[in-house]
Amino acid sequence: MSRIKTIEWKENAAVIVDQTLLPLELHYERIENVESMYDAIKILKVRGAPAIGIAAAYGLYLAIRNFPDDRSVDRFLEFLNEKAAYLASSRPTAVNLFWALERMKRRANQIIANGISVREAKALLLDEANEILEEDRRTGKAIGEAGLKLLKGKKTILTHCNAGGLATAEYGTALAPVYVAAEQGTLFHVYADETRPLLQGARITAFELSKAGIPVTLICDNMSAAVMASGKIDAVIVGADRITRNGDTANKIGTYGLSLIAKAHGVPFFVAAPFSTFDLSLSSGKEIPIEERDPSEITCGFGKQTAPSGIDVFNPAFDVTPSHLISAFITDKGVILPPYEKNLSDVLRKQE
Amino acid sequence: MSRIKTIEWKENAAVIVDQTLLPLELHYERIENVESMYDAIKILKVRGAPAIGIAAAYGLYLAIRNFPDDRSVDRFLEFLNEKAAYLASSRPTAVNLFWALERMKRRANQIIANGISVREAKALLLDEANEILEEDRRTGKAIGEAGLKLLKGKKTILTHCNAGGLATAEYGTALAPVYVAAEQGTLFHVYADETRPLLQGARITAFELSKAGIPVTLICDNMSAAVMASGKIDAVIVGADRITRNGDTANKIGTYGLSLIAKAHGVPFFVAAPFSTFDLSLSSGKEIPIEERDPSEITCGFGKQTAPSGIDVFNPAFDVTPSHLISAFITDKGVILPPYEKNLSDVLRKQE
Repeated sequence: MSRIKTIEWKENAAVIVDQTLLPLELHYERIENVESMYDAIKILKVRGAPAIGIAAAYGLYLAIRNFPDDRSVDRFLEFLNEKAAYLASSRPTAVNLFWALERMKRRANQIIANGISVREAKALLLDEANEILEEDRRTGKAIGEAGLKLLKGKKTILTHCNAGGLATAEYGTALAPVYVAAEQGTLFHVYADETRPLLQGARITAFELSKAGIPVTLICDNMSAAVMASGKIDAVIVGADRITRNGDTANKIGTYGLSLIAKAHGVPFFVAAPFSTFDLSLSSGKEIPIEERDPSEITCGFGKQTAPSGIDVFNPAFDVTPSHLISAFITDKGVILPPYEKNLSDVLRKQE
Repeated sequence: MSRIKTIEWKENAAVIVDQTLLPLELHYERIENVESMYDAIKILKVRGAPAIGIAAAYGLYLAIRNFPDDRSVDRFLEFLNEKAAYLASSRPTAVNLFWALERMKRRANQIIANGISVREAKALLLDEANEILEEDRRTGKAIGEAGLKLLKGKKTILTHCNAGGLATAEYGTALAPVYVAAEQGTLFHVYADETRPLLQGARITAFELSKAGIPVTLICDNMSAAVMASGKIDAVIVGADRITRNGDTANKIGTYGLSLIAKAHGVPFFVAAPFSTFDLSLSSGKEIPIEERDPSEITCGFGKQTAPSGIDVFNPAFDVTPSHLISAFITDKGVILPPYEKNLSDVLRKQE
């Protein structure tokens, strides 16, 4: 089993896998300034909610690391806040982006409040970004272990987009149970939706699973109903970009349709996500803004034009799956079953 | 409004639009022998059930037109049957292919039984192929008129794949009501699924509708659920490759999932098809063989490789939508409502 390091800190730079080049080229790119990180997030070189959070944390450190040591801490914090706002605008629906930036800002305030110098503060903020990455590794493993219990007796799963190792630091979310099972000597068979328009399933999920020696079958998004009708699928597992208080879940476009198709076939539909993906400030999916992306992703996505010039296109990046279509959430704090609003607050209460 | 002639007989050859080159190039290809027609059907230069039937009829004429006039009529019929079997193997799930070839064979037998010479028989078989094309034009118009009544008060439809003019000689099937409405001065707004893997929706439906001045919005297959959830879609209309006695319908992969999604949103789901698409020899969809196509359609479909080399792929060309998910059939013999088995045989009885 050969795992790829999606993002890491190495020789004074964040080193990322440029995922726009997969599956043909495994290219590691050194990101040395905040503008490059902003672009990397925006054009999906880094993608997947957890990896975006890690990238944002390193991005913020890259933004402030050359801040003059001799300037005031107030000016330092102001500058850091500005840069955080800039990074936050790279993907408006990625809650992990905001979460990581808020955490970095909170840490900065705390450091400064403790009377620490700008020079030392910068070093401590790099430590914080590294810690976010390490926590993500532990989170993936915990999701994998929780999910594996839920999947007892199941052999074949279907997944959409990429919520695998390449969406995080290591284990992934939706694929974490598959990787943990593989460590224990059990191989699931995974059906991977190719996931138009950007084909993360074909380019990334199929790539990382086959590289890890896990049986994977690639299908087009519109084939999942036929595959489920044939009785081949024991469960669907997807990731999430944002989950509201009632369990409504924003994830890659196509997730909602897939949940309806799973429901029609009596196939359980699981959402795997770190607890940080829950945005408890939102009461339901109606409050989630849906990003629309460039029409050219659909009309000329892969090296040639596949639709008439100038055609009208609707290209939403996400859809919202209502909570009643979700059988359970698999999180790093364990499995959460319906009713979600109550059970989520129970998990929160336990932590406090 | 500018309609394209999908297939016609011109200067001793069948002239077809090479639909593999759309939407960038509107190229007319002269087909002068049966092998070229076999290839044209197999690699989808000609596609859509009705157009395939017309192509097969011309293909069979091309096969026999150089048969020596001085040989026996028995040998002529034997040769014709051989060539019909060859053409029938080009697309094993296309019932119109068999229908048109059977009709040509029946006509040949009838001609020969009437004591007509081989030379004259050949000319009469060309007439028969031309008549198949003319009937298809009339069929499309009749479907359009029947469908338009069903769509009264509706403004926006969603369609999958291409069951438009380019699938037939002229009006199409699923799009026939849209074209008939346009003739009468009413413009529907059409959402077109791009239809992976071969993108007939993006390349062909979007092309022919925009060329005809009809508002069209292109989406990926996995966006239909989000579009329906937004309340934008008043009805779904698709074509069919084969419909069994109980109303189960084989159509382009993705149709079945779309029917489940329409059902979940209370959106009516219509199948438009010429009556010849009904294969009353089959009692249900379980008896329909599903063609599997080449994996490279999914892994390298857009001009560059989009999945890892050697990955396992499942690429069914069709799926089967069970009749209970179909709100009505729109045919050239009028609208057929459930219960289908009974109402279909009523239509048949009326004809007799």
